[in-house]
Amino acid sequence: MKVISSINGMQNWSKQMRCKGKTIGFVPMMGYLHEGHLSLLRKAREENDYLVMSIFVNPTQFGPKEDLGRYPRDFGRDKKLAKLCGVDVIFYPEAKKMYPAPYKTYVEVEDLSDVLCGKSRPGHFRGVTTVVLKLFNIVLPNTAYFGWKDAQQAIIINKMVKDLNLPIKIKTLPIAREENGLALSSRNTYLKEDQRRQAIILDKALQVAVGMIQSGYKDPRRIVAKMRKMIKSQKTGRIDYVEIVDMNTLKPVKKIKGRLLICLAVFFGKTRLIDNAIICA
Amino acid sequence: MKVISSINGMQNWSKQMRCKGKTIGFVPMMGYLHEGHLSLLRKAREENDYLVMSIFVNPTQFGPKEDLGRYPRDFGRDKKLAKLCGVDVIFYPEAKKMYPAPYKTYVEVEDLSDVLCGKSRPGHFRGVTTVVLKLFNIVLPNTAYFGWKDAQQAIIINKMVKDLNLPIKIKTLPIAREENGLALSSRNTYLKEDQRRQAIILDKALQVAVGMIQSGYKDPRRIVAKMRKMIKSQKTGRIDYVEIVDMNTLKPVKKIKGRLLICLAVFFGKTRLIDNAIICA
Repeated sequence: MKVISSINGMQNWSKQMRCKGKTIGFVPMMGYLHEGHLSLLRKAREENDYLVMSIFVNPTQFGPKEDLGRYPRDFGRDKKLAKLCGVDVIFYPEAKKMYPAPYKTYVEVEDLSDVLCGKSRPGHFRGVTTVVLKLFNIVLPNTAYFGWKDAQQAIIINKMVKDLNLPIKIKTLPIAREENGLALSSRNTYLKEDQRRQAIILDKALQVAVGMIQSGYKDPRRIVAKMRKMIKSQKTGRIDYVEIVDMNTLKPVKKIKGRLLICLAVFFGKTRLIDNAIICA
Repeated sequence: MKVISSINGMQNWSKQMRCKGKTIGFVPMMGYLHEGHLSLLRKAREENDYLVMSIFVNPTQFGPKEDLGRYPRDFGRDKKLAKLCGVDVIFYPEAKKMYPAPYKTYVEVEDLSDVLCGKSRPGHFRGVTTVVLKLFNIVLPNTAYFGWKDAQQAIIINKMVKDLNLPIKIKTLPIAREENGLALSSRNTYLKEDQRRQAIILDKALQVAVGMIQSGYKDPRRIVAKMRKMIKSQKTGRIDYVEIVDMNTLKPVKKIKGRLLICLAVFFGKTRLIDNAIICA
């Protein structure tokens, strides 16, 4: 397994492999790997000749008051796990090489980036789409893999790829969860013991919502109200949003019908957790 | 010579050629070819195994009151000229295929897009960078060729390619001119006989500016004033801008020093012409 830090070095490696007719699977990450990340690596390993993962805590997707500085990092551990998953190359660039001054170019997916997490985190998705496009141009993958926990991110990246005609296939994989239902996230490491216990309510609330839809409830307001009540029953949870939205537009639906995303963001202390469920009604 | 209208068809053709290790030169155009376009085609023909040109009058780079509808088109003539220049493929897509509803994704090069022509044509360069990125992803060229008449466009595209780490080389070629100095442009066809005669002043004014700089003038205001006076001496010219700017930032300089772009946009009737000169002082 190689670690490549230089952008040219990475791009040249990929060009060589592509010239030989080899396929490249790519998993972009911020690091501090958990089972969710590993499931992406395993799938990509299965489906491609070569497997590249990137570790880059991308500054442009963090707001000025967010957790860029304290975002969990452990490159040594990530490297060991990557090797176990059969990664061929870790692309591990420096921020100043990714955004050499004066950096000016940004990609934006309109409308989809302004709702849900985009409303609470202005500029976040512009940062995500820009860095993902840069990484695609550097790693030149055939297929890139994303986790469904960041559902809005996955939907926006799919839209970018389609709109910009990128010659890349995107695959998304299901949310990995603890046995108690808590969605895996590198940010879970921030949680104190009682917060972690209380955060289990998020998955429970999603399951209740799915159950209500399956048993015929048609008014999203009633379902969202039930979910909010459940979350508020926990001492420390502070709701950012709970919404039921159309899978394509990410706009709240007025009636339960079609392919829907039930999604939420809730603060436990300073830690903002997100989770979601898809349902076809 | 092939004409390909389908996006997938074009991308697949290019993937095949790239897989065989062949190089692709690409000249994106709006059509209604003149000698400036042909010089790009000839250079690209010389330097690559295959030569692709696109003809696409891109709606997203025209303002609501601009000349999208009446922009000159003559595909039959363009096709003949392309064949004479050794073009292998003309990519000739439909607007509704390039921007299928609901289209959402745009690329923007900040600051550089807001000055000069960007000030007079809000959104123009966002339209240009977006379509050029899309065309690059569809045609997958090794090298793309642009004319220097659209100097700001060339500078912005170079910046986009660098910032987004696109694996593509950009080459720019000098402005092609009539014998009387008028810069070639598809829009020259709009000019009435007296406008065409008066438009010669643009090149003359640029030459005078270059001469003043070469003979030691240091104050850009004096040079710009001289240029404006020359242009205003013609009955029909209405100045949009005349500026002397830094080649990297496109900001007006206070003193004549370094690599500079002397650039102007002037209306003759409804026809907006641009022209420029580079100078190292």
